[in-house]
Amino acid sequence: MPFTTNLLHPLPNDLTNEVFTELLQQGAVRIERIVSNGHVSLADFWYDQDENEWVLLLVGEGEIEFADGERVRLRQGDALNLPAHTRHRVTFTSRPAVWLAVFY
Amino acid sequence: MPFTTNLLHPLPNDLTNEVFTELLQQGAVRIERIVSNGHVSLADFWYDQDENEWVLLLVGEGEIEFADGERVRLRQGDALNLPAHTRHRVTFTSRPAVWLAVFY
Repeated sequence: MPFTTNLLHPLPNDLTNEVFTELLQQGAVRIERIVSNGHVSLADFWYDQDENEWVLLLVGEGEIEFADGERVRLRQGDALNLPAHTRHRVTFTSRPAVWLAVFY
Repeated sequence: MPFTTNLLHPLPNDLTNEVFTELLQQGAVRIERIVSNGHVSLADFWYDQDENEWVLLLVGEGEIEFADGERVRLRQGDALNLPAHTRHRVTFTSRPAVWLAVFY
């Protein structure tokens, strides 16, 4: 019988670093939970991914900056689609912020 | 620039029927929001899907019954993977219950 995994409880105790948990991987699809705790991208770091990413903020808030300088604030329930090679960086996360990421 | 969609606000006003909203469709991947409001599967109805489905309960509670008679209760944050042709039916949803479904 299928079994459930809860994405909200428990959260990792040690959030010194962001915690990435793979929930599913099959073929070209990968689902991850990402728990941030005030973490932001390093200065001048840009994500430039080969995969498309659809991201949903489950808990808290975050902010993503794009290469054109625009910043998008995300709140609980907000989803954003990031096509492959959309250069972006994370400029704010609440303590904590829980993201669901679907790479495809 | 990418734009955000909020999955929690607003919910549909008319929940006479379950509301399925496609959020993403690309290749073999489809992401949907499903808003239930006490809806359950009809007696003797079984989902028997050609696609794999990974489901996450964003709001509320639900219960899924499997062909072997086992029932799994889902609460907020619970995720469940349903491989293709896992026969199942929905036996309870809260008012409302908001699901995220990734078909792959």
